[in-house]
Amino acid sequence: MADAKAKIAVLGASGYTGSELVRLLLRHPRAEIVALTADRKAGQAMADVFPQFAPFALPRLVTIDEVDFAAVDLVFCALPHATTQQVVKKVFEAAPGVKVVDLSADFRLTDPGAYEQWYGHPHQALELQKEAAFGLVEIYRDEIRKARLVANPGCHTTTAILPMVPLLEAGAVEPESIVVDSKTGMSGAGRSAKEAMLFSEVSEGINAYAVGSHRHMGELDQEYSKAAGRPVTPMFVPHLSPMNRGIYATIYVRTAGGKAEDLHAILADYYRGEPFVHVMPFGTVPHSRHVRGSNMVFIGVVADRVPGRAIIVSTLDNLVKGASGQAVQNMNLVLGLPETMGLEQIALMP
Amino acid sequence: MADAKAKIAVLGASGYTGSELVRLLLRHPRAEIVALTADRKAGQAMADVFPQFAPFALPRLVTIDEVDFAAVDLVFCALPHATTQQVVKKVFEAAPGVKVVDLSADFRLTDPGAYEQWYGHPHQALELQKEAAFGLVEIYRDEIRKARLVANPGCHTTTAILPMVPLLEAGAVEPESIVVDSKTGMSGAGRSAKEAMLFSEVSEGINAYAVGSHRHMGELDQEYSKAAGRPVTPMFVPHLSPMNRGIYATIYVRTAGGKAEDLHAILADYYRGEPFVHVMPFGTVPHSRHVRGSNMVFIGVVADRVPGRAIIVSTLDNLVKGASGQAVQNMNLVLGLPETMGLEQIALMP
Amino acid sequence: MADAKAKIAVLGASGYTGSELVRLLLRHPRAEIVALTADRKAGQAMADVFPQFAPFALPRLVTIDEVDFAAVDLVFCALPHATTQQVVKKVFEAAPGVKVVDLSADFRLTDPGAYEQWYGHPHQALELQKEAAFGLVEIYRDEIRKARLVANPGCHTTTAILPMVPLLEAGAVEPESIVVDSKTGMSGAGRSAKEAMLFSEVSEGINAYAVGSHRHMGELDQEYSKAAGRPVTPMFVPHLSPMNRGIYATIYVRTAGGKAEDLHAILADYYRGEPFVHVMPFGTVPHSRHVRGSNMVFIGVVADRVPGRAIIVSTLDNLVKGASGQAVQNMNLVLGLPETMGLEQIALMP
Amino acid sequence: MADAKAKIAVLGASGYTGSELVRLLLRHPRAEIVALTADRKAGQAMADVFPQFAPFALPRLVTIDEVDFAAVDLVFCALPHATTQQVVKKVFEAAPGVKVVDLSADFRLTDPGAYEQWYGHPHQALELQKEAAFGLVEIYRDEIRKARLVANPGCHTTTAILPMVPLLEAGAVEPESIVVDSKTGMSGAGRSAKEAMLFSEVSEGINAYAVGSHRHMGELDQEYSKAAGRPVTPMFVPHLSPMNRGIYATIYVRTAGGKAEDLHAILADYYRGEPFVHVMPFGTVPHSRHVRGSNMVFIGVVADRVPGRAIIVSTLDNLVKGASGQAVQNMNLVLGLPETMGLEQIALMP
Repeated sequence: MADAKAKIAVLGASGYTGSELVRLLLRHPRAEIVALTADRKAGQAMADVFPQFAPFALPRLVTIDEVDFAAVDLVFCALPHATTQQVVKKVFEAAPGVKVVDLSADFRLTDPGAYEQWYGHPHQALELQKEAAFGLVEIYRDEIRKARLVANPGCHTTTAILPMVPLLEAGAVEPESIVVDSKTGMSGAGRSAKEAMLFSEVSEGINAYAVGSHRHMGELDQEYSKAAGRPVTPMFVPHLSPMNRGIYATIYVRTAGGKAEDLHAILADYYRGEPFVHVMPFGTVPHSRHVRGSNMVFIGVVADRVPGRAIIVSTLDNLVKGASGQAVQNMNLVLGLPETMGLEQIALMP
Repeated sequence: MADAKAKIAVLGASGYTGSELVRLLLRHPRAEIVALTADRKAGQAMADVFPQFAPFALPRLVTIDEVDFAAVDLVFCALPHATTQQVVKKVFEAAPGVKVVDLSADFRLTDPGAYEQWYGHPHQALELQKEAAFGLVEIYRDEIRKARLVANPGCHTTTAILPMVPLLEAGAVEPESIVVDSKTGMSGAGRSAKEAMLFSEVSEGINAYAVGSHRHMGELDQEYSKAAGRPVTPMFVPHLSPMNRGIYATIYVRTAGGKAEDLHAILADYYRGEPFVHVMPFGTVPHSRHVRGSNMVFIGVVADRVPGRAIIVSTLDNLVKGASGQAVQNMNLVLGLPETMGLEQIALMP
Repeated sequence: MADAKAKIAVLGASGYTGSELVRLLLRHPRAEIVALTADRKAGQAMADVFPQFAPFALPRLVTIDEVDFAAVDLVFCALPHATTQQVVKKVFEAAPGVKVVDLSADFRLTDPGAYEQWYGHPHQALELQKEAAFGLVEIYRDEIRKARLVANPGCHTTTAILPMVPLLEAGAVEPESIVVDSKTGMSGAGRSAKEAMLFSEVSEGINAYAVGSHRHMGELDQEYSKAAGRPVTPMFVPHLSPMNRGIYATIYVRTAGGKAEDLHAILADYYRGEPFVHVMPFGTVPHSRHVRGSNMVFIGVVADRVPGRAIIVSTLDNLVKGASGQAVQNMNLVLGLPETMGLEQIALMP
Repeated sequence: MADAKAKIAVLGASGYTGSELVRLLLRHPRAEIVALTADRKAGQAMADVFPQFAPFALPRLVTIDEVDFAAVDLVFCALPHATTQQVVKKVFEAAPGVKVVDLSADFRLTDPGAYEQWYGHPHQALELQKEAAFGLVEIYRDEIRKARLVANPGCHTTTAILPMVPLLEAGAVEPESIVVDSKTGMSGAGRSAKEAMLFSEVSEGINAYAVGSHRHMGELDQEYSKAAGRPVTPMFVPHLSPMNRGIYATIYVRTAGGKAEDLHAILADYYRGEPFVHVMPFGTVPHSRHVRGSNMVFIGVVADRVPGRAIIVSTLDNLVKGASGQAVQNMNLVLGLPETMGLEQIALMP
């Protein structure tokens, strides 16, 4: 593409993953936003919906039907699941050569049966589901580079998969022992007006949700099992912490005979040179504040007081590495651009 | 004591557990605060240290040495550990008949070796340590009634022990499987000025702390082992969530053959009629907001998607049932008063 | 009424002022909740809507039409404005002898023209509007005792009127100079699901709202003018601060010749002996934290660096003294009970 | 300087303005951090003090004495006031040609008498005080370009001066009428461990501070008076809102005869083309969230209900445009670089 800018459409620009894509793309030297959609807010200026963009020239919000996909190089799809599979099908019908990075859950599960189990209805675009690359860059970089459709993984999922895949591949932990206790900030729940998401319902307290039934478990099972070479079904409970951004996963494991230090060594080795994964010194854990606003994942490993047990902590910003930042990272791969382009922001602390 | 008011001293009144004791005692129909101590703030009015008490008549802050313990019926000791054992020894020397409810960790561990292991130095008042009752009312009500010295349990501890003791006593869970992921609000860290406790360091983020080494594990081991009849060493990691009050423990267990419903039935049965423990309907979990400002513990049990695994959630307000409220509950028992007296506050939500 | 309990109905129990009434009334020694309404949640248990009430026996939520008002002594009406005037009219038709404490704005403005100006439509119950007492207890105690219908004042209003009425009555400040900058917590906006009230929209930021047009100005004008004996139209801007509870009004005035100390003396004198108003030492200001969860108002007066100018700060909990606590205070007066009964809670800090 | 990177020292790198400078400079294409100082933390790695910088190569923290100022092009001084004047004197003695951007209050007041009045002691570097340019770029751009020493203005000050200077210069408002009610996030108070700055003291509440005596009034008086051409002494009260970042000033004025729309027109005209000042459409106000993490100032103007009165709202991020971002903007001017270089970050919302 020489130095030309890629023409980008963002479907679902009135939500938080949409606005985060706009934030990143406006400063990306090789991207140009040519279309923004928001069905219910079509006709409004982006600055009416997100006043922080008032100083920038941006296309007015339109409906999806108004977008000329043939004039677009890459589509970010930040729409609700189920809707998404219909929309992506139409996008490819209108423009078979376009690239799509999808932020929904629709193309993450490769097993149609697993999709139906977790989402309660048969998948409507099985061919695309088969074609999609799982957009966890540090694990699937090569597949993503060649993909037309990338399924950006979930925020809890990215946080919990990155530290565990190297350990499961190495056979260093007992797969049956894994407990993932994940805490998320509120922005992961999106911008729709629901009573449970009001400030007065969320502030000054904490709670578990979707206990025993959260859909991200489908992704965890898939990736943990693939890494371990046999079925793994971790315990997983997500929690809502009174903060805007951040996922913080505390993972409890038993080693397969080795020491906690060994787990640390495996992770440090696996992620050496990765621009967006930082493994902390053994025995220390990160705060979610250390990655807020950045595309980084910070991982820590600590030995439990009982030998053979370890605690692994992994944290990222759910809107950046957990969603829109990783989506831009995928875009960079798909378009043949440097992987870190436009993702240089350093964490905002405090 | 007929209807006379008990004369109460609060040692360490300039901290949050101290001020919470004052809040509760000012409205307790049978308690009269006769002494408040705060070594570094001695001489000040309580309203200078905590302006919310300005409308109330309270004794001026003094040093511990200025208190006439012979004129006191009951002492609440809200001092740092280690200091405490020296102070309590002197209190009993000055007034052998006084009752003491101690909020520090100094008298919670019955095994002197365990104390030394977790606190790094030999105990200085072994006789008193032996004498102390463990102040978890719902488990040790009878011992507490007869005690002169009550060791009020820790906040993480109370939260994690109450739901597990009935299950371990019944042999309903595998002791080796227990993982306790606990989240606390900031007030549990006290009022001393430390960088890590600044608003800007805590707000808008979450983090684990004291991973693999938190001292409350000594109490968990002791009480879990006693209930199970054999040594139990759970995995336990505390986290700091950006909120003032609340402890929220998510406990992951494997059943000893039964179903998650069985665990719920055991807990519902065990706590039927308890004024301060509420077991929620099976399959639901509480928020920490539902107990804020009250002396309640809310417990929920949910089945995991894999049979034979269950998630147990327990929550309380760390300053009330996790500290000063439970201390008043202990005071009521020790003084022969109705157990719920002065503890009727309903949760403040939002 | 001897020692019998008054039979109470709460209309609109699924909102925050409704739940706060329930919190207070459950511990009021002379009140018995006999009916709770919530049109859209009728049929549900109160514990489904507010789990903190699970340990308590409460009537199931019903629609307003299902309430037998003839069997009720006093009705709290916590409904939206406009709806309220229709409902209260019907309540009095069904039970002319019942007492009503209304928490909406419908009966606060005595001038029908002012009502129409601020609310955009003619009042539908002019006779009742004329009959209603303005429920600011410290100013209108005698009228309230005799009233059948009490109009509980707004939260910003209560905060800004209490410190200014004594000063305006005394002619101690220039009425033209008054600027009221008010900050409120989020619970004042209620529990309806609106995008602007989501945690992610409110947390970690501050903003003015309804600038130049907030309806509470009608109440301010009315009460300031009455106190001054001539028309007063203060500048007033409300702000939303990221906290659940609290109103904090910073009021800028020029004295009518005197010193700031004189203003303090007038206020200290006026509120001497009032159980719920505390005037702080001259030169100090309160925090909203010092009144959270209590029925207290804290007022401070500070001299500006320029002689003849002063800053007056007033704060209360918008759900207690700013709404439901003041409503219970009005109930106590109307029913001939001690004014402070059931309102003894001390501020929860932190 | 061709395309070479400027060699930068940051004095006081362990505070929040220091870390914010590091965050910005690490991504500035023409800056290279060669020295970081922190007297009490000297010897530590920057990543020990601020773990978010762990992925970056940065010089180890040293004492000020260890810095070779002759090898530095520009020094950012983020030290406490009073200390600063001593340090800057020594810096210039060691390296007369170095440029200094000072973030303290030490060189902001041009009148030595005003300095002594607000800071309680005579200035120790009067020659430098005389030499310093006031670093409010939009007002003093030309002076700054030629300066060796720039006094970066205060955060409350920048927020309140930018919207008022154009209006006072135009004679459009009555100088006697100005009331500035300012709200700040907690990071403005720095990172030193003080009880009043603990999370539990700040969260879930709001309070005024330094009422009638805040030192930023000296800067306001100076700049307002200069713009008006006669002495102006506005009323000003700062407040602490429970958020990390953001200053939000609500300014109440009377017009000098004109309408609120006229004020808006003056501001829109004055700031047309300014990259970091955005004047919103008349009648609307910003949130502090809209500028968080960016170098932007958002300004809104609204008419009061009484003709001839207006409300002006101004907001910025106290650590960026209110401190370190503006300091980098000053650096760009002083070094002859494009003014917006390295300051392109868009607000992080939520």
